Amino acid sequence: MSTAAPRTTGQDRLWSVDEHLEDILAAVRPLEPIELQLPDAQGCVLVEDVMVPVSLPPFDNSSMDGYAVRVADVAGASQEYPAALEVVGDVAAGQADLLHVGPGQAARIMTGAPLPPGAEAVVPVEWTDGGLGEGPVHGMRARSLGPEQTSGQVRVYRSAEARAHVRAKGSDVRAGDRALEAGTVLGPPQIALLAAIGRGTARVRPRPRVVVLSTGSELVQPGEELRSGQIYDSNSFALTAAARDAGAIAYRVGAVADDAETLRSTIEDQLVRADLVVTTGGVSVGAYDVVKEALSHVGDEDEAGSGIDFRKLAMQPGKPQGFGSIGPDHTPLLALPGNPVSSYVSFELFVRPAIRALMGLEDVHRPTTRATLAADKALTSPKGRRQFLRATCAKGIVRPVGGAGSHLVAALAHADSLIVVPEDVESVEPGTEVEVVLLG
Amino acid sequence: MSTAAPRTTGQDRLWSVDEHLEDILAAVRPLEPIELQLPDAQGCVLVEDVMVPVSLPPFDNSSMDGYAVRVADVAGASQEYPAALEVVGDVAAGQADLLHVGPGQAARIMTGAPLPPGAEAVVPVEWTDGGLGEGPVHGMRARSLGPEQTSGQVRVYRSAEARAHVRAKGSDVRAGDRALEAGTVLGPPQIALLAAIGRGTARVRPRPRVVVLSTGSELVQPGEELRSGQIYDSNSFALTAAARDAGAIAYRVGAVADDAETLRSTIEDQLVRADLVVTTGGVSVGAYDVVKEALSHVGDEDEAGSGIDFRKLAMQPGKPQGFGSIGPDHTPLLALPGNPVSSYVSFELFVRPAIRALMGLEDVHRPTTRATLAADKALTSPKGRRQFLRATCAKGIVRPVGGAGSHLVAALAHADSLIVVPEDVESVEPGTEVEVVLLG
Repeated sequence: MSTAAPRTTGQDRLWSVDEHLEDILAAVRPLEPIELQLPDAQGCVLVEDVMVPVSLPPFDNSSMDGYAVRVADVAGASQEYPAALEVVGDVAAGQADLLHVGPGQAARIMTGAPLPPGAEAVVPVEWTDGGLGEGPVHGMRARSLGPEQTSGQVRVYRSAEARAHVRAKGSDVRAGDRALEAGTVLGPPQIALLAAIGRGTARVRPRPRVVVLSTGSELVQPGEELRSGQIYDSNSFALTAAARDAGAIAYRVGAVADDAETLRSTIEDQLVRADLVVTTGGVSVGAYDVVKEALSHVGDEDEAGSGIDFRKLAMQPGKPQGFGSIGPDHTPLLALPGNPVSSYVSFELFVRPAIRALMGLEDVHRPTTRATLAADKALTSPKGRRQFLRATCAKGIVRPVGGAGSHLVAALAHADSLIVVPEDVESVEPGTEVEVVLLG
Repeated sequence: MSTAAPRTTGQDRLWSVDEHLEDILAAVRPLEPIELQLPDAQGCVLVEDVMVPVSLPPFDNSSMDGYAVRVADVAGASQEYPAALEVVGDVAAGQADLLHVGPGQAARIMTGAPLPPGAEAVVPVEWTDGGLGEGPVHGMRARSLGPEQTSGQVRVYRSAEARAHVRAKGSDVRAGDRALEAGTVLGPPQIALLAAIGRGTARVRPRPRVVVLSTGSELVQPGEELRSGQIYDSNSFALTAAARDAGAIAYRVGAVADDAETLRSTIEDQLVRADLVVTTGGVSVGAYDVVKEALSHVGDEDEAGSGIDFRKLAMQPGKPQGFGSIGPDHTPLLALPGNPVSSYVSFELFVRPAIRALMGLEDVHRPTTRATLAADKALTSPKGRRQFLRATCAKGIVRPVGGAGSHLVAALAHADSLIVVPEDVESVEPGTEVEVVLLG
C-alpha cells in the first residue's frame, strides 16, 4: 500500500501489544462443545457439571485379601487361642451371588469383593493360618492351584472391630454428588473419576484444528537443495509444533509462493478443516507482501467482523501483524511476520492465547515471573516498543541468549524464556529485576 | 502363594520405594534411535550433535522493505535535500538473478531479499518517497497493482551507514557450528532451527509404545450397565491418559477377566506393539491374583533378567508391585495394584520415570517442592511406610484432599500434588514443612 502523504489513521498508527491481544481475545469464541469418548477428551475442558449416578464404591467391599467374619466369632482371638471358623466358600471380586456368613462361619474374600451378608468385618489372610492349620501365612494359594481351601476350617489369630477392612458403599462419592465441575480440564485423574462413575464419554470443547502455512517464494522445503537467494522454510514446522504444544490439532500446509491468487485459493481450500488459520510472512510494507494483498480484501464488507486488519504493533520483534476472520464461517486468521523469531514470538503472544481461548481454557497465557538480569552490559530497547528478548531463566536469574536480531533462530533454540522490556524503557542495567515470560 | 510358616526372604520382605525405582531404572534402557521426520520428532530426544551445513542467513539480505543503495549516494541526504537515485529494478525474496547497483542507482528491495552487488546498505521505504515524487511514504504499492515503481526515480531523505539494515551472511549460525547438542529435547524452537538449516529429519529416540491393561472379573466398561458386585474399569483409561501425558504412544487394551491363561495370551498378543506393558490389579496375596499367577512363571529361567518379580513395597498406597521383563525381547512390564488411587500413584512413581527413561530423557521425575502443611489436624502415617497423600499446593501451602483410603478416586481428581510422608514419620502437625510432588 502506498500513499501520497503520511497517514496517521488505520493501519499506520502503532497499536500496543495489549490492544492487539485484547482484540484477538474479544473476537475468538470457544468452540462449540461435543460429546467425546474419554480417551479423545484428554486435555479438553468439560462444559457441564458431571453428577455421580451411582455411589462409589457401589457396595461394601473388602480392602484386603482375607476372611469375612462376624465380630463376635473372633473376639479375643490370639496367637495362643485362635478362633476356629468354618470356611463356607470364596467371595471373589465381581461375584454377584453371595454366600451368607452365619455364626461360627467365615468366607474367604478377595480385595474389592462384596462383603457377604452376615459378615461384619474382614480379617487379613496374614492374621490367619490360611485354612492350612499350620500357623500364620503370608498369602493365599491361587485358586487355580486347588480348590481345597474354599472349605474346611480357618484359624484366626486376632480379633477385628466391626467394619474393619471394609470400604463402605459411597465412601468415595455418593450418588447425586457433583463429581466434576464445568470448566475442569480433563487430565488422567479426572478421566479416572469419569470412568469410575461409568461415564464413557464427556461433553467438552474439542481441540481446535489449526492450519499453518508460510508464504514466500524464497522458501524451500528442508532436505531439498538450496539455490541462490533461497532459504529453508522453518516457520511452518515451528508453528505447527507450537500449535500442537498449545493443545491444537495442527495441520502444516507448508510454504506458498508469493502470489496472491494462489495464497487466497490455498487458504479457501483449507477452511474446511480449520478452526483457526495462521500464516507467516507477507504482512509488511513490501511490494510482494501477498498475505496483506490477498487478505485485505476478503470477506463481505457489509458484514461486521469479516476481513483481515493489518497493523503495526509497538513491539520488537513482530511489528507487522494481521488479524481478522475469513470465509463463510468467519474463521479467525492470524497473519504473522515472516522472520522466524518474529513469527515464533508472535505465536507465543497472540496465537497460543487464541488457541487456548478456542479450547475454552481460562488460563490462556504463558506463566510469567520476575528475575534479575545477568548480562555483560545494559540491554538497549527502542523507545515506544515493547521488546521481547530470548533468554534463559533459572533460580531467579535471567540471561539474554544471542542478540536482538529477529533472524537469530539459533539463539531461540537455546532460550527457555523471553525478557520483556516495556515500551517506556530504553536501557536495562545488569542487576535490574525484569519481567520474564517462561516458554515452558 | 501360601507357605506353612512365615518367610523372611524374597517377596515377603518389604522393599523401599527407592530400591524398587532403582531396580526399574537400572533395567529400562533408552529405545534405539531412529531417523524421524521433523513433525514426528517433536518432544523426542536428539541422539546426535547436529552441525550447521550452510551458514544462516545463507547470503547478505535486507532486514527491511526499502531501497538498496551505495552509501556515498545518500551521504548527507535530508528531508530538505533528498538524494535522487535511478531505480534499476526490484529485488524480491527468493530472487536468484540479481541486478547490479551502480553509482547514482538504487534497487527496490524486499525484506529477506539478497543484497544486490554494488549496494552497501538498505534505506527503509519510509525514508523515501517510494518513487512517487510526493514526499515520504509508509510502504510500497503491491507489485501486482502496477509495475511502474520498478523504474524511475526515488528520493531518499536520510543517509545510511554501510551495512545498515543488512543481515550479514552467517550472522545467525555459521557452517560448521554445532546447531544442537545430542540430548536436546526437540520443542518448537529446536524444530525451527533444524528446519532452518535444511534438516527435514532428526535422529531421535522414538516415543515408547505403552500397552495398558487392567485385570479383574468385576470390571465393566464405562457406559455399560453395572450389575451386582461389579465396578467400572477406570484404571485402563487413567493410565493410558497418564502414559500419553508422560510422552508415550499409549494403547488401552482394557479389562481382562481374572483368568491366568487369558491374561497371559492377551499380553503375549500385545507384545508386538509394546515397548512397555503396564497391568493393574491381581498383584496382591489373594487367591484370584492372576497377574501374579500368570506372570510369576514366564520367561526363560536360565536367562538373567527375564521374568516378573513381585514385591511388597514400604509405601502407602501401592504396597504390592510387580516388575520385570517378558517375551522374546525382554519387554519391560510393570504390574501395578488394582485400586485406582494405588495404581495412579504407582504410575507416577514408577511407570512415568520408566517411560521417560525409555525416551532417553535425563530428567525422568516429576518436580518436587517443599510447602507448609495446612490441615485441621495432624496427618497420621503408618510407621515404616512412605505415604503419598493427595493434596492441592499453591503459594507454598499444601492442603490434603480427601482421606488416605486408596479407593478415593474422587479426591485424586481434585488434587494437583502428593504430600510425601517419610517412612520414619508417623504424624505431621499442621504448619510443618513437607515434601510435595507436583503432578503438573
